[in-house]
Amino acid sequence: MEILNEGVTAVAGVSAAGKAIGIKKSGKKDLALIYSSVPCNAAAVYTKNHVKGAPLAITKSHLKGGKAQVIIVASGVANVCTGKKGLKDAEKMAELAAHEVGVKKENVLVASTGVIGAFLPMGIIEQGIKGLKQHLSKQGMDAAEAILTTDAGVKQAAVKLGNITIGAIAKGAGMIHPNMATMLCFIFTDAKFPSSKLQAMLKKAADSSFNMISVDMDTSTSDMAILMANGLNGEIKEEAFQEGLNAVCIALAKKVVTDGEGATKLIEVRVKDAKTLTQARVLSRSVISSNLVKAACFGNDPNWGRILAAMGKSSEWFDQETVDIFIQGTHVVGKGIALGFKKGFVSDAMKANELHILISLNSGKETATAWGCDLTHEYIKINAEYTT
Amino acid sequence: MEILNEGVTAVAGVSAAGKAIGIKKSGKKDLALIYSSVPCNAAAVYTKNHVKGAPLAITKSHLKGGKAQVIIVASGVANVCTGKKGLKDAEKMAELAAHEVGVKKENVLVASTGVIGAFLPMGIIEQGIKGLKQHLSKQGMDAAEAILTTDAGVKQAAVKLGNITIGAIAKGAGMIHPNMATMLCFIFTDAKFPSSKLQAMLKKAADSSFNMISVDMDTSTSDMAILMANGLNGEIKEEAFQEGLNAVCIALAKKVVTDGEGATKLIEVRVKDAKTLTQARVLSRSVISSNLVKAACFGNDPNWGRILAAMGKSSEWFDQETVDIFIQGTHVVGKGIALGFKKGFVSDAMKANELHILISLNSGKETATAWGCDLTHEYIKINAEYTT
Repeated sequence: MEILNEGVTAVAGVSAAGKAIGIKKSGKKDLALIYSSVPCNAAAVYTKNHVKGAPLAITKSHLKGGKAQVIIVASGVANVCTGKKGLKDAEKMAELAAHEVGVKKENVLVASTGVIGAFLPMGIIEQGIKGLKQHLSKQGMDAAEAILTTDAGVKQAAVKLGNITIGAIAKGAGMIHPNMATMLCFIFTDAKFPSSKLQAMLKKAADSSFNMISVDMDTSTSDMAILMANGLNGEIKEEAFQEGLNAVCIALAKKVVTDGEGATKLIEVRVKDAKTLTQARVLSRSVISSNLVKAACFGNDPNWGRILAAMGKSSEWFDQETVDIFIQGTHVVGKGIALGFKKGFVSDAMKANELHILISLNSGKETATAWGCDLTHEYIKINAEYTT
Repeated sequence: MEILNEGVTAVAGVSAAGKAIGIKKSGKKDLALIYSSVPCNAAAVYTKNHVKGAPLAITKSHLKGGKAQVIIVASGVANVCTGKKGLKDAEKMAELAAHEVGVKKENVLVASTGVIGAFLPMGIIEQGIKGLKQHLSKQGMDAAEAILTTDAGVKQAAVKLGNITIGAIAKGAGMIHPNMATMLCFIFTDAKFPSSKLQAMLKKAADSSFNMISVDMDTSTSDMAILMANGLNGEIKEEAFQEGLNAVCIALAKKVVTDGEGATKLIEVRVKDAKTLTQARVLSRSVISSNLVKAACFGNDPNWGRILAAMGKSSEWFDQETVDIFIQGTHVVGKGIALGFKKGFVSDAMKANELHILISLNSGKETATAWGCDLTHEYIKINAEYTT
């Protein structure tokens, strides 16, 4: 597997455009179009939040046939809590993009991110989409920028697997601005797979990447990941593709976490030797989501008691008498009991940009990894001082 | 119902003692004994954390017959993650207390709170329990102090219902010190009830009080609430008693939350007109537990988008199109859509010590209330700078 320093446009037949059209008051890019030269088989996974944005409903309905060719994205306004008008606006956005590039509107998927409770400025969007086709190019950076809101930087990932390329762009920085919270990910490939297969593979990849990260446990109303396969470079074995897809999704998930509000560190929690995959996943996520663990990581405190307590509060039972815990490689808990480790030494090791917490349950063969960030003064500052 | 400004010793036949014996290095009181002059019917509820302290196992085993007369509490060391020796130590503590006051050891319940992973200093405890009987008095303040760890102040509550008194003391201040985290509550009454009835009533009371608060969602390994009824003042109707018990538990739960690490405000979230009680409870708890909502409350930000998103991420579905939200009495969301409220006005109202968020689902008749506190710079400071 070759890692490419590119995004969606690394994929054969895929071009993209990004433009500042005035949705964002900052004057930053806020409209993106991603286009495949031929129709794709496509699949998507959506936020589990019960409150869902209008664009998700339209994308879901357009994806019924498992086909798509275009993604149009507006950033600055999320089009959530906007009732029937919100649905009409999202549908209209698809129509305008379809007309611009000459495809059926059902082949256009729609996404929005930004303020909740505001309507899309449809006049601005209509004007902005006009002529957008001319901006389509194999330079993907404009589109990667245009989908951002409060993110610190663009998030791209791509891999090459023989003839086949998988390329993606994403946005997301926790719920940095409460109403600006969204994890969006658009993945393209020139491999050929039926949409049902894409759906299964995307679900698998999301379960070990986007569903294993937490900035603050507040899931957004607009989260969505889309996978589109145009088949231009033919077939590839499912296992190899899945591996590449996982790598792309994990790379982007880690970028989202590192970009978490006020974060100074990436925290990786790996639970191994678990009885079931669910147990490993639930426990690693529980540790990564604990405010106390996150604050301890910020303070370079090898506080294994918080780790054990965070595991204990989850829905998955485990035997505390078989648990081993390692922080930055140092064995701190053996069979559930504190070991006499050198606190100063481990605390120094925790000053790194990446923290590794390894937990062995010694009760099975399953492993899962979760990623998060520390909880800092800056997080409070950003979230308390932002006013709606 | 008459509210008394007292604790456990307001109850007929109940006396208490609190002493500094040297478990805490600070020299503060760290050993408490609560004693009923006659045996009680008794019940208890325990932490749902899978990692449980040794004292919980001993208390549970002693409570098998539904009888108890004495509670002995050590603070400074939690006796958690201490293996077989921890169990032996907790049992020994019960034995020593039983010997001191002249009851069977099975009638003594044991609790500990403090550092995880350390053994109880049994020599100090043995010395400390000697002569403790002479300290027993109807002045309950010493015991109320002795069970504290990082709490800002004592937590007592008592009510009088005709002849009957219910009195309680508690400790808990969130997970202020990671390894110091415990919610302990000891409730006594001179009413007469069989232990099975006490169990059911305690569960009910805990479900609408201790189980409806959140400082940081990190439940402790030692949480426990005990209810003991000595029957000295006879019978009372179950409904009336339940009401009194709920009032005592809610008063203490609110004191724990207000004492939350770094908290500047009590936040009350009430979900009404829900389809089921579970729906109302899950949704109100989800709002109270959201870091984003908590940080917004700290910053006086009437950020309804965060409230709606926090509801949406819970396990309970609801119809976003029927939701009304009120912040400090101002109607901010109607039928799931933003209303044109005056942000400055609501923000000013949020500067109070108590915030009230009212959510109507307009889909049923059930109501639940949850209590929490804001998320502040002080929380990060306390939790990042505390070193194990």
